[in-house]
Amino acid sequence: MNSSTTRNQTSIELGDTVPTVTITREFDAPVAHLFRAWTDGDLVARWMGPRSQTMHIERYDCTTGGAWRWWSSGEDGVEHHFYGSFHDVRRNDRLVQTFSYEGFPDSVALEILHLEALDGGRCRLTSVSVGASVEGRDAMVASGMERGVVEGYQKLDTLLAGG
Amino acid sequence: MNSSTTRNQTSIELGDTVPTVTITREFDAPVAHLFRAWTDGDLVARWMGPRSQTMHIERYDCTTGGAWRWWSSGEDGVEHHFYGSFHDVRRNDRLVQTFSYEGFPDSVALEILHLEALDGGRCRLTSVSVGASVEGRDAMVASGMERGVVEGYQKLDTLLAGG
Repeated sequence: MNSSTTRNQTSIELGDTVPTVTITREFDAPVAHLFRAWTDGDLVARWMGPRSQTMHIERYDCTTGGAWRWWSSGEDGVEHHFYGSFHDVRRNDRLVQTFSYEGFPDSVALEILHLEALDGGRCRLTSVSVGASVEGRDAMVASGMERGVVEGYQKLDTLLAGG
Repeated sequence: MNSSTTRNQTSIELGDTVPTVTITREFDAPVAHLFRAWTDGDLVARWMGPRSQTMHIERYDCTTGGAWRWWSSGEDGVEHHFYGSFHDVRRNDRLVQTFSYEGFPDSVALEILHLEALDGGRCRLTSVSVGASVEGRDAMVASGMERGVVEGYQKLDTLLAGG
């Protein structure tokens, strides 16, 4: 594989015995730009989720102790609602939040996102998501998580390229 | 063992390969009383934590999307600060929150607490706490978690017995 095919690819790894999903992704943008794209709800609405869905932000108070709520809709008219809390928000460094899909109201994941600067004004995102059981984690993955993550980050590339 | 020695004992189990702490405890009180003792900050201050510590509630907005912050102090004058968010609060049923100790600022746990009614006006609490790694979970346990939990629930027994 040459670097043109691996550059900025999304890696998704499932913990073997631990109910984690670890996502690693590099971006051609400084940490500060990525942090802003994650913490400004108007920007989040422009990139999060798969291409087939439109994002609607109801609440996005991205501060330590704040909370969020958004929903997505596709051409089929079906709405999917999600909500969570922001446990810890550290500028250009770390974002810890909870995540639930209302379709599975008892499922919940804790997501720990870390940003680090790379040479050349680039950065790397590492996200570790953990739930209470491997079964719950596997249900989340089976629901189409990978497509949403991969396409969302491609939309984020476009947003970041536009400054 | 006769029932007088096992009644209302605290069970703490660590996941073998999964970074969980599962706590089970019965109480001689209805679910509604236990729920109130968990969700009213003034009451929480009267029972949470080990006997050696005094609790100080800074913030306790126990609603879905709310947050909390408290600290404890002992005779040695040392303060221990903690904070988290309330992800999901369902009356007399379920409480999902995050938990960090500022002494280990990068550690965080997700705690899923479930209440169920038992015969005779009693109830059972089950709490599953999960972190991102077995190492982090073990550090939390080693810091004296068990004593704080067991003594806290004994103080809660006393509080509930007083109505």
